[in-house]
Amino acid sequence: MRIHPAMAATEAPPVMEARRWISGISFPADRPLLNVSQAAPVAPPPQALREAIARFAVDVPQAHLYGPVLGLGDLREQVAADWSDAYGGSVDAVDVAITSGCNQAFAAAISTLAGTGDEVLLPKPWYFNHKMWLDMAGIQSVPMPCGAGMLPDPEVAAGLITDKTRAIVLVTPNNPTGAEYPASLVRVFFELCRARGIALIVDETYRDFHSRKGAPHDLFTCRDWRDTLIQLYSFSKAYRLTGHRVGAMVTSPARLAEVEKFLDTVAICANQLGQMAALWGMQNLKQWLGGERAEILARRAAVEREMSTLSGWEVLGAGAYFAYLKHPYPMASDALAKHLVSEASVLALPGTMFTPQGDALGLQSLRIAFANIDTAEIGELARRLGSLTL
Amino acid sequence: MRIHPAMAATEAPPVMEARRWISGISFPADRPLLNVSQAAPVAPPPQALREAIARFAVDVPQAHLYGPVLGLGDLREQVAADWSDAYGGSVDAVDVAITSGCNQAFAAAISTLAGTGDEVLLPKPWYFNHKMWLDMAGIQSVPMPCGAGMLPDPEVAAGLITDKTRAIVLVTPNNPTGAEYPASLVRVFFELCRARGIALIVDETYRDFHSRKGAPHDLFTCRDWRDTLIQLYSFSKAYRLTGHRVGAMVTSPARLAEVEKFLDTVAICANQLGQMAALWGMQNLKQWLGGERAEILARRAAVEREMSTLSGWEVLGAGAYFAYLKHPYPMASDALAKHLVSEASVLALPGTMFTPQGDALGLQSLRIAFANIDTAEIGELARRLGSLTL
Repeated sequence: MRIHPAMAATEAPPVMEARRWISGISFPADRPLLNVSQAAPVAPPPQALREAIARFAVDVPQAHLYGPVLGLGDLREQVAADWSDAYGGSVDAVDVAITSGCNQAFAAAISTLAGTGDEVLLPKPWYFNHKMWLDMAGIQSVPMPCGAGMLPDPEVAAGLITDKTRAIVLVTPNNPTGAEYPASLVRVFFELCRARGIALIVDETYRDFHSRKGAPHDLFTCRDWRDTLIQLYSFSKAYRLTGHRVGAMVTSPARLAEVEKFLDTVAICANQLGQMAALWGMQNLKQWLGGERAEILARRAAVEREMSTLSGWEVLGAGAYFAYLKHPYPMASDALAKHLVSEASVLALPGTMFTPQGDALGLQSLRIAFANIDTAEIGELARRLGSLTL
Repeated sequence: MRIHPAMAATEAPPVMEARRWISGISFPADRPLLNVSQAAPVAPPPQALREAIARFAVDVPQAHLYGPVLGLGDLREQVAADWSDAYGGSVDAVDVAITSGCNQAFAAAISTLAGTGDEVLLPKPWYFNHKMWLDMAGIQSVPMPCGAGMLPDPEVAAGLITDKTRAIVLVTPNNPTGAEYPASLVRVFFELCRARGIALIVDETYRDFHSRKGAPHDLFTCRDWRDTLIQLYSFSKAYRLTGHRVGAMVTSPARLAEVEKFLDTVAICANQLGQMAALWGMQNLKQWLGGERAEILARRAAVEREMSTLSGWEVLGAGAYFAYLKHPYPMASDALAKHLVSEASVLALPGTMFTPQGDALGLQSLRIAFANIDTAEIGELARRLGSLTL
């Protein structure tokens, strides 16, 4: 059975790999599993949203039928209105595409930009699904190392651009590091990309949990943002709709005409009930989402407080759903992560899943997706990490 | 704004293009639109299935959360059991992946097989989304011309295989021609692919509307089917779930381990409610589906009867949701299709959307997706085609 070489060379999905580490294991009753591996809500959406979905299923025939490839018109309108309001710029419904989740938005964006032999700059540590998609497409991922605060340096990035470079990717708040990129830094990257004639992809999946009030960047206020910017978003985290697969892309209508070809062949359209759920969430859950954000920010504060008490550990970044930790052991992070499962009943993803093979930072780091554990459990996590024997 | 050349060279989605032809047009009250352009149910699923979906939304938290990349375990089990029963072979749950629709199953299958510079054989006329996906990926589509009964010839196919060929694609019952490929023909293609070390992709999206009772082919009874066969299926047509985006792929677990990488990055998983709906349909709607099939077969008979009365027209193929017609006019089919909108209030897709540019068959043919119109409307369609003035 022949497998295409680019696919064979692509790593297996890390989250599925990590699930296999705990498959079939019984954890001690006095030390139950703390699963900080996946960045996803583990509770369903609020009852009112579940009931709205149930009504759509029974009452709205269109909920079960094909819709437009680029998404429901009402949802595109709502995104455009909310974005114009939130970012202080001008976004129209024709600038918005709805996708089957934010990963699909990334894949679609890339398919309009690059192919075999091209290059795309990713911050390192990267979001593994970005790296995997580029690998499958035969596109070279060029790592942009992150410095203090886990921020990439535009001058370093400028030096990495070649005539094969098609885009720079930023994720803010970042997965896996949690770093919130300052608006001014995002702006410098935008100007770099504009000057060099390449695209800037800004993945804002975790935007709703940003610690700062107000717009996280001012790119949409640039008159010509559509020529350079491709912004990605997810409805999964804000409204606990991970199982419904709804995301969005905001860019020029001309690029969306190309995106439409990709989405038509890989999905036809995002599922209709999920889109209706996302729209209902935007229209009815603003206050509830504010409470969710406050809770996540409280958990972030607890992580920073608790982890700072641990001897030898260092919090390299924290924000949105994530803390990125430097561990003190002379042991590769992938081995340490498996050790944590058996010795501490903790499932966290090792830095090796976010970095090139042999990368020093990757070997020395762990991603903690703390959104799924409450402050008491965060304390318990710190105690288990602190009492680890190796 | 730079667009990757392979994407720029890919045709726009035909169904969206056709929708634009009727956008904003008011049709005469005495001659309303007959839309035979899209192969999709226009009615929602039965009330009992809609109510089941509503219950899942309210009562099952997991309906809203991420699930396994390759699909819900119960649904994979059900597919395996039903397939083993229907095809008389051996299919296990680990041979089954659930995808966000059958187009995604095709894209995922191709991504494991081929990349830039490779070749894949498609029957001509082809299913346009297959052609589009291959174009975007930089893979050469090699047309296999269809002869009598719109069937491809294995000997011709054998002569088209080169050292770059990675797969042969069959669609049966066929989109766009409706042709049902005899089991013996499918078997010869399987043996050809096995002998030449390439994959056979068999897209059976319309299987549930096959005119013959019993297994449409015997490939699953081959001991080594997993090494060669990739079978694709859709839950959209059988249970009227087009808006939910649920399909399936059946092949070797080793290939599905590669498919998992693709699905993880392009979708993470098929949406959960849709998967639950598909499973409920399989478990509860067998009798209802039998009635649906009988109705489609009655419409097919009506199409064959009515169209055979038209002077100069020829039914090249009919089956599942489609009739493929040869028209009598000295006019390209894409021009004729637009003429049909304005002069007959009929929206049908021209053969040019299913063939290479300038192809004689494409210029002379139309696809009629008759599943959406009843027998009275089929009669009306024939009257309008018969009284066309050019």
